[in-house]
Amino acid sequence: MSHSPTLQLAMDLISRPSVTPEDEGCQALMCERLSALGFTIHNLRFDDVDNFWAIRGDSGPIFAFAGHTDVVPTGPESNWQRPPFEPVIENDMLYGRGAADMKGSLAAMVVAVENFVAAHPDHNGRIAFLITSDEEGPAINGTVKVVEWLEEREEKITWCLVGEPSSTHQVGDVIKNGRRGSLGCELKVKGIQGHVAYPHLARNPIHQAAPALAELAAEEWDQGNDFFPATSFQISNMNGGTGATNVIPGDVDVVFNFRFSTELNEEQLRQRSEAILDKHQLEYDINWKLSGHPFLTPEGPLVDAAVSAIKAVCDIDTELSTAGGTSDGRFIAPTGAQVLELGPVNATIHKVDECVCASDLDKLQEVYQGILKNLLT
Amino acid sequence: MSHSPTLQLAMDLISRPSVTPEDEGCQALMCERLSALGFTIHNLRFDDVDNFWAIRGDSGPIFAFAGHTDVVPTGPESNWQRPPFEPVIENDMLYGRGAADMKGSLAAMVVAVENFVAAHPDHNGRIAFLITSDEEGPAINGTVKVVEWLEEREEKITWCLVGEPSSTHQVGDVIKNGRRGSLGCELKVKGIQGHVAYPHLARNPIHQAAPALAELAAEEWDQGNDFFPATSFQISNMNGGTGATNVIPGDVDVVFNFRFSTELNEEQLRQRSEAILDKHQLEYDINWKLSGHPFLTPEGPLVDAAVSAIKAVCDIDTELSTAGGTSDGRFIAPTGAQVLELGPVNATIHKVDECVCASDLDKLQEVYQGILKNLLT
Repeated sequence: MSHSPTLQLAMDLISRPSVTPEDEGCQALMCERLSALGFTIHNLRFDDVDNFWAIRGDSGPIFAFAGHTDVVPTGPESNWQRPPFEPVIENDMLYGRGAADMKGSLAAMVVAVENFVAAHPDHNGRIAFLITSDEEGPAINGTVKVVEWLEEREEKITWCLVGEPSSTHQVGDVIKNGRRGSLGCELKVKGIQGHVAYPHLARNPIHQAAPALAELAAEEWDQGNDFFPATSFQISNMNGGTGATNVIPGDVDVVFNFRFSTELNEEQLRQRSEAILDKHQLEYDINWKLSGHPFLTPEGPLVDAAVSAIKAVCDIDTELSTAGGTSDGRFIAPTGAQVLELGPVNATIHKVDECVCASDLDKLQEVYQGILKNLLT
Repeated sequence: MSHSPTLQLAMDLISRPSVTPEDEGCQALMCERLSALGFTIHNLRFDDVDNFWAIRGDSGPIFAFAGHTDVVPTGPESNWQRPPFEPVIENDMLYGRGAADMKGSLAAMVVAVENFVAAHPDHNGRIAFLITSDEEGPAINGTVKVVEWLEEREEKITWCLVGEPSSTHQVGDVIKNGRRGSLGCELKVKGIQGHVAYPHLARNPIHQAAPALAELAAEEWDQGNDFFPATSFQISNMNGGTGATNVIPGDVDVVFNFRFSTELNEEQLRQRSEAILDKHQLEYDINWKLSGHPFLTPEGPLVDAAVSAIKAVCDIDTELSTAGGTSDGRFIAPTGAQVLELGPVNATIHKVDECVCASDLDKLQEVYQGILKNLLT
């Protein structure tokens, strides 16, 4: 049985067990195809992570596809109905680890560029690929380092399309034109350990933390805006106590996270949080960790190109969304690029029996091709 | 070197490594001495716990010494300056596990009775011993069971002197004429697990619990009374979270404890606590565990006898206190007995290098003897 070029390439990529940070030859496969189209390839290995930057064209705005060849672990393969690295299509569903996140998108990108370049060998501007094998892992030696390398070369991405699976029910129904920021915090509230029978000799850090945490949880941080829901605060972990039932603990550890809109910045969240902790006279150690600033690509050429390509191929009025988790777009947006995430349905990502609708990948290829046409011709 | 009878007996008891629930012949040693004085001995072994009830006299009020032959574990013996089960006296300090809690008291009781009976063979009322080897452990097959056995025989203790180390700086400076109640609780607040990026699909149990716990911690449960400090609420443990920083936990476990005065009872505490939890609309599982009702022995014959004996022997105006942890007195008081705790200084109990002032034990023997004289002649 013969498959479309997009499905065939997706299957070739899925059969390579490229669990983070391994690439297992996925990038070589892509580079071979891009090289044949006249792309200049820069293989950029940082530490144990393979990345590449490929670019075609001499001048003008850069349209870059961004993505990753690495996949998350499979867990016990015996939990899968089909071997995760032996892709198969059944009833129009392509099965395998990475089918949806995001080898299907990578295949669609390459084939879309092949088709576009065949039709428009002298397109305007430039086409690029920014591909890493460390998106699902620590994300230290991947997109971050490639972006630094580009900045050193003063190479600026104008439009960036990240192939993350953005769709909810059918391909193209949702595109992400921004992401909330993510700010994490490890808080240790300090008390004085003692016996529950002698509370006057102790200071209970859980008692002291409770009203402060209640206030943090009840706080309205902002009201969001047209593009973002309101900033949210969530405690993920709270642990204190010796296990003994008669000991007042000496401290309690609290881990929390903000997902924040563009109405606020990191510094404001830190100041407002600590003001609440201080108001409750807590003694504490605090360790903040920014995972990503929020970013937003308002309507403009990139969004317009995507919306109209989706309408033309899928006959859908796509929804712009900034909901959900983070992606490598958070590292590219701060360079000034317009960033959009558009990929297949995300229902099975990171799960066993990951799969994607096979004909959706062909449509995605057409949508990508349409976007290139809208922007570069 | 020859020691006083009290110190010699204390050392004989300490040299028996009777870690709960083992008795290691301590009770046999005591019973032999009491038998010689005309006591009737009832050996009461329940499951793996040795206990005995010994009584002298035919009728009239019962004065009972209560105590335990078991000791807490030593931990690594290498942490001790001297072997814990090889008692030694240096600079008027008797060293060894159980020296203060409470083999010194047991020795003082036996010798006091020997001296008292020698002087007053036809004393009024009756003298008894209620001794267990499971005070430091689960306390299931010890005093509780002996009290049940006594109730079946319709034998009522009038006055009970528990030999727990009540003193703070010197023997007799503090006696405990009551103890607060202790009510424990395991609370599981239930939410709905989810991703921190999608809080509208989850319900954070830590956020829900925080204001309720803040209110419980701030609540004034009572104001105490002349004998008891105000009832106190303490959270000892709180644990929730998967460890991951991006997951809202499905539930959070909270362990707390009340130490409560005679102004309140268990039922009131449970009702008021649950009313607060319900007011905050928590969904929860709750598991209450009563460790002991509060009890109080107001001034009267037993307290008077102890206060005047301490004054005569030690020249101290003793302090009546209801502070501190629990003791087996909690099981005896509900039978209607007056209960008092009087023993040596408690500074080193449950610690390495446990010790007690040797001459304090001789004084304690005299105080015990004085109390017998005050009540039974």
